[in-house]
Amino acid sequence: MKRLFVAAVTTLGARASLPAAAQFQKPEDAIKYRQSAFTVMGNHVSRIGAMAAEKAPFDAKAAAESAHIVVTLSKLPFTAFGAGTDKGLPNRAKPEIWSQSAKFTAAADAMAVEVAKLEAAAKGGSLDAIKTAMGGVGKSCKSCHDDFRAEKYSAN
Amino acid sequence: MKRLFVAAVTTLGARASLPAAAQFQKPEDAIKYRQSAFTVMGNHVSRIGAMAAEKAPFDAKAAAESAHIVVTLSKLPFTAFGAGTDKGLPNRAKPEIWSQSAKFTAAADAMAVEVAKLEAAAKGGSLDAIKTAMGGVGKSCKSCHDDFRAEKYSAN
Repeated sequence: MKRLFVAAVTTLGARASLPAAAQFQKPEDAIKYRQSAFTVMGNHVSRIGAMAAEKAPFDAKAAAESAHIVVTLSKLPFTAFGAGTDKGLPNRAKPEIWSQSAKFTAAADAMAVEVAKLEAAAKGGSLDAIKTAMGGVGKSCKSCHDDFRAEKYSAN
Repeated sequence: MKRLFVAAVTTLGARASLPAAAQFQKPEDAIKYRQSAFTVMGNHVSRIGAMAAEKAPFDAKAAAESAHIVVTLSKLPFTAFGAGTDKGLPNRAKPEIWSQSAKFTAAADAMAVEVAKLEAAAKGGSLDAIKTAMGGVGKSCKSCHDDFRAEKYSAN
């Protein structure tokens, strides 16, 4: 998956010879793709979060499966924020994604580290370890949302 | 991932003590989740398809990454067709998903077999093997879409 991540970084930095955006024919394709990846990822973070908060029964196998899905998906959205993908479909991407691209990339990298820890914890099968890891994941989600996700959807 | 699949099967067969639909608070959550999973999966099938059709340069690493994403996502949508999820958001699910649930489940199982073959081929790094596997994947996609996906989105 490293290649995709590198592509995202270089696209954001506008230094790419082959931007990740080339994977998408139209801006709306990129927006739909990244929103879809976030939707599935968020659903599975929530499933693990419910276990960590003891609002759902702890199911070690389900937690490990969800953590693997989260890790697999976590790299994808950041390949779909190429130049010109701020409009095309209603979305919540703040202009800072492009004006502070190094900070955005750093936030994506930090999240990747936290979800990797979560997967390791979930594979280990310890609810306590999962609770600790979820703390880090939750902080990285919130931090990035605070800085880069608008409260409301854009008109297009 | 087997557990998720079993959950889907039992939900569709209305024999579940803990239906997969319990993962979703509202029908619209299930619809958004399954559509999102299909969107990301379809994007990555298309990327491999473009290589197989020689419309994109063959990149063995990218193909293997995409195939892994496809396999990881392929099981997810079928956990989100629980009873009552035919409405809630505009969607293309035909009534046959529920009225012919055994056939729908068989189609999902057949697709799982084909994408597993695709991942094996992609891991092997042979474009010819990928072309062969993509033939099977394409047929299983089309067959299920023909039978269970409507041409147009529902009104809600």
